[in-house]
Amino acid sequence: MASALSPLPLVVEVTRGPLVESRHTGILAVSDSHGRLAAAFGDAERPVFPRSSAKIIQALPLVESGAADALGLSVEELALAGASHNGEPAHVATALAMLRRAGLDAGALECGCQWPERGSDVAALNRAGEKPTALHNNCSGKHAGFLCVACHLGLPHAGYVHAAHPLQEIVTAALSQMTQTPLDASVRGIDGCSIPTYAIPLTRLATAFARLGTGIGLAPARAAAAARLRKAAAAAPFMVAGTGRFCTAIGERFGERAYVKTGAEGVFCAILPEAGFGVALKIDDGGTRASEAIMAAVLERYAARDEAERTFLQRWSRRPLTNRRDIVVGEVRVAAETRAALGLQP
Amino acid sequence: MASALSPLPLVVEVTRGPLVESRHTGILAVSDSHGRLAAAFGDAERPVFPRSSAKIIQALPLVESGAADALGLSVEELALAGASHNGEPAHVATALAMLRRAGLDAGALECGCQWPERGSDVAALNRAGEKPTALHNNCSGKHAGFLCVACHLGLPHAGYVHAAHPLQEIVTAALSQMTQTPLDASVRGIDGCSIPTYAIPLTRLATAFARLGTGIGLAPARAAAAARLRKAAAAAPFMVAGTGRFCTAIGERFGERAYVKTGAEGVFCAILPEAGFGVALKIDDGGTRASEAIMAAVLERYAARDEAERTFLQRWSRRPLTNRRDIVVGEVRVAAETRAALGLQP
Repeated sequence: MASALSPLPLVVEVTRGPLVESRHTGILAVSDSHGRLAAAFGDAERPVFPRSSAKIIQALPLVESGAADALGLSVEELALAGASHNGEPAHVATALAMLRRAGLDAGALECGCQWPERGSDVAALNRAGEKPTALHNNCSGKHAGFLCVACHLGLPHAGYVHAAHPLQEIVTAALSQMTQTPLDASVRGIDGCSIPTYAIPLTRLATAFARLGTGIGLAPARAAAAARLRKAAAAAPFMVAGTGRFCTAIGERFGERAYVKTGAEGVFCAILPEAGFGVALKIDDGGTRASEAIMAAVLERYAARDEAERTFLQRWSRRPLTNRRDIVVGEVRVAAETRAALGLQP
Repeated sequence: MASALSPLPLVVEVTRGPLVESRHTGILAVSDSHGRLAAAFGDAERPVFPRSSAKIIQALPLVESGAADALGLSVEELALAGASHNGEPAHVATALAMLRRAGLDAGALECGCQWPERGSDVAALNRAGEKPTALHNNCSGKHAGFLCVACHLGLPHAGYVHAAHPLQEIVTAALSQMTQTPLDASVRGIDGCSIPTYAIPLTRLATAFARLGTGIGLAPARAAAAARLRKAAAAAPFMVAGTGRFCTAIGERFGERAYVKTGAEGVFCAILPEAGFGVALKIDDGGTRASEAIMAAVLERYAARDEAERTFLQRWSRRPLTNRRDIVVGEVRVAAETRAALGLQP
C-alpha cells in the first residue's frame, strides 16, 4: 500500500450551481502504531487542540482507575463518557444515571448549560417552560465520567475542571502518555466545557489513535481499557452523538471496524483497527462540514470493504447542499486532487 | 492616502489560550466609483456569489418601478426589503404589512420557511405550538419587495423566484448594470431563498457599492433610488438585521456614514459615502465570524473619525470568544499582517 504524503493541504470544495463558492483546507495524518505515516497532507506536525476528538483518551482513567467496574457502569454509560451528544432525552437520562452511581446529581457538573442540538428537543423544553441544564451539554457524559473517577478515588469533586485539580492531572497524564507529548501551560487552552485542552502535533494524535486500536506500545491494562471503550462506542453508537450525526452513522454501519470522533473547530480522529491505523485531521478554518467530508474519504480509502460501503461513505464525502425549500443548490465535496492523493477514484 | 494592494489573502485568526487554533483567509476590494482600488487583498478579481450582500441592489426596482411610492411603503419597509433579518416579531409584522399593500399574504412567498435566529423567538413559537412561516425567513422582506414590484407592474406573482420570470429579469438587469458584468446561466446558482444568485468579480461589486453611495456613473433615477434605500437602512437599522447583529449595530452607530450588509458564505459589502468607497469581501471558507472581523477593520480604516469609533469597531475586529460558562477562552482577530497592510495600528 503506497503512502500518500502530500506537502499540500487537503481541500474540500463547496459548490453552488456551476461554480466552487467556498473552499476549506486542512491537515491530515494517517499513522500506524509505530508512527509510520500511511498518509499525510500539509504540515501534519502542526500542534492542534484535539478538543472533543480525544474524549476516548480522556475516558481511559474511568476504566483504568476501577471506577467503571466499582460503580457498575453500563456499555451505554461508557459510550456516553466519550460522547459529544445532541442532548436528546436518552443522553440526558444516561448522564444523570452516571452521576447517581457516583452519589451526585446535575448540580455537580461544571460544564455549563447548553440547548439541545435538535429543534424537536428544544421545542419540548420550551413547551414545558424549562431551560436546558448542564445534563444537556454535549459533554455531560464526559463530565459525569470525570465525577465517577473523582468519587471512586475519593477526590474532592468541586473544581474538577481545573488543570491543577488531581482529576485533571490524571486525565492529562493519560493524554500525554498516549500522545508521547509533554503537556504544560505553554500549549494549554480552555475548552468549551471549561476543562483544559492541550495542543498536540497531529501526527502524534494519529499514532495514539492507532495504538488505541492495536494496543501496540501500551501497558496491558491500558490496552484493555482502550478496547473496552472502543467496543462500548461500537455497541452503543447512538450514545456517542445521536440522531442524524456522522459519528453515530459510522458506528452503526461499521461497528468495531471504525471508531470516529469529531471535535470542535474542524478536528476529527479515528481508530481503524483492521488496518492498524489511527487518523487525525484538522480543517484550518474550523469547518465541521469539511472535517466530516474528509473523514468519510479516509474511511472510503482505509476501511471500506466493498462498493456498498463506499457508496454509503460518499453520502458525506460528496454531500448535497439543499436550500430552505429543499432544492439541491450545490454540494460539499472532497476536491479531486485530494481524492487522487488519497488513492481514491474521482 | 496610499493604496493597500496585497497579492496575499487577508487573514483572520481564532486563538485559544496562547495559540492560534483556526485561521480564515479571504479576498477584499475597496474601490472608488471609477474602479480605482484603495485596497485589495488576494485575487480580488475572483467571481463570488454576493448572496444577500447585494440585497440593496436587488431592491432598486422596488423604488425605480414606482412600486414603493404607489403602494406607500414606509422607511421601515424599504429597509426590510434589503434585510437579512432575525425573524423577530417586528420583522415578521413588517413583511406581512408589505405583502398586504400588494394585496397578498404569506402564502405568496416562495422563500421557504425558517426558524427565527434568536432562541427567545423560537421559544415563543414553541410555546404557542406554532411552526415558523415564510415570514420568518431572513429574506422575507426582500421577497415581499419583489411581490410589490410584480403587483405594481401587473406581472403574475407565481414563480417570481425563477430566473426566467420577468420580475427576476428586471432584478438581474439592475445587478448586471450596477456591476457592469454580463450575468447568465454560466455564473448562476440558486440562493438559500430560491432566487438566482450570480457570481461577480469582487472588484466590480466594490465599484458598484461605491456608486450606490456617490451616484457617479448612474442615471439620476437610479442614483436617487440608491440614496433612498441607503437612507432607509440608516433610519431603520433594526429592520436590516436585528437584535445583537453586526449590520444593525453599525447602522445604529454610523447612520448614513456606513451601510454594511452581510451575505451567506462569508461575503460582506459596504457603502462608505464620505470616502466615496465601496467595499466587497469574501472569506474563502465561508466563515461569518471572519467576514465581520474584516469589515470592522475596514471601517476602522476608512470610516472611523475618532478613537471612540475605533474602539467601538474593535469589539468586532478583535472579538473575545467565550465558552459555555462565559469564560473568555480566546479571540477572533484580524491578523497583524492584515491590519498592517490596511494601515491600521496593531
